[in-house]
Amino acid sequence: MNQASGPEIERLIQLLAKLPGLGPRSARRAALHLLKKREQLMEPLAAAMGEAAAKIRSCSECGNLDVTDPCAICASGARDPKVICVVETVGDLWALERSSAFKGRYHVLGGVLSALDGVGPEQLNIATLIERANREETQEIILALNATVDGQTTAHYIADKLEGAGVEVTSLARGVPVGGELDYLDDGTLAAAFKSRRPA
Amino acid sequence: MNQASGPEIERLIQLLAKLPGLGPRSARRAALHLLKKREQLMEPLAAAMGEAAAKIRSCSECGNLDVTDPCAICASGARDPKVICVVETVGDLWALERSSAFKGRYHVLGGVLSALDGVGPEQLNIATLIERANREETQEIILALNATVDGQTTAHYIADKLEGAGVEVTSLARGVPVGGELDYLDDGTLAAAFKSRRPA
Repeated sequence: MNQASGPEIERLIQLLAKLPGLGPRSARRAALHLLKKREQLMEPLAAAMGEAAAKIRSCSECGNLDVTDPCAICASGARDPKVICVVETVGDLWALERSSAFKGRYHVLGGVLSALDGVGPEQLNIATLIERANREETQEIILALNATVDGQTTAHYIADKLEGAGVEVTSLARGVPVGGELDYLDDGTLAAAFKSRRPA
Repeated sequence: MNQASGPEIERLIQLLAKLPGLGPRSARRAALHLLKKREQLMEPLAAAMGEAAAKIRSCSECGNLDVTDPCAICASGARDPKVICVVETVGDLWALERSSAFKGRYHVLGGVLSALDGVGPEQLNIATLIERANREETQEIILALNATVDGQTTAHYIADKLEGAGVEVTSLARGVPVGGELDYLDDGTLAAAFKSRRPA
């Protein structure tokens, strides 16, 4: 407990310390920084948080976070509705959008199957994905899940579920990352890169 | 610019990224975490920030941050008014309070003299310190400034200014930190520890 600062500062520090990447020490530094930059940072941030907390909702169609439901991506006519890219989290969706490599729609599972954490299919947005897959317009479903054990287990599970839905199920390519040096790559990646080698 | 999320999330991320210890990437993670834990974290944090921004002021006596002016420490009868501990920042004040090694009052300079950053005596709370030093009750002034070049320059400057104020001016001891291993200590610390060695 911090004797010098009153309960207001103490509470602020405790809440800041709950943010990922901030510990008790850095939360104190952040609190001091906020108190120094009151007009420029603290008040705007408080307002932005309040506004976001009030306005942001998850899209009932794809699970993305936005102020509108359906979200801007699901509502956009410019996005191809025939292709659905399945991701674990909204963070992954943002990452793919930054790469601007994909112009279809998304589906956010909200996690992955995990026996350890007791996450079953019913905890994830899988039922809604099946429903979307069975729609007329849907032609391809890209499984863009992390290359982790849980991620791949989930991918296999979904691929099974989608059999007979009459959609093409694909997943992201494995290989040498751009700028990657062979010497620093794990054997699994190298093996995958060899298996799916292409004519130069 | 993050295409997927609306301007509200974008603004939240940009403001979070201004916190010390959070970069653009960790700010995104923090924003997602906040949006996931809306009731438990985001709304309370927004409220706590708003409240702090509205209530917290710096103490006109010592420069500490508190909801009251004078601050709890200056107002407390339990704190010895005869001894004033001079620190650079409120963070340093908090650190000393956590150690609970000091039961007197504080004086926060708000920085240190720095030719590089163009910080002169008039930017710091030095005049008010002189004024406090000349008061009847003040007997000792402890210069608890960082052991940096700027910190020590500032300490010397203040010590000069306080000559003739009829107060004892002291500074924190230099030496081997508790748990410190000689092998890992810099020469300056070792030299200081030797110079001020004491009977065991």
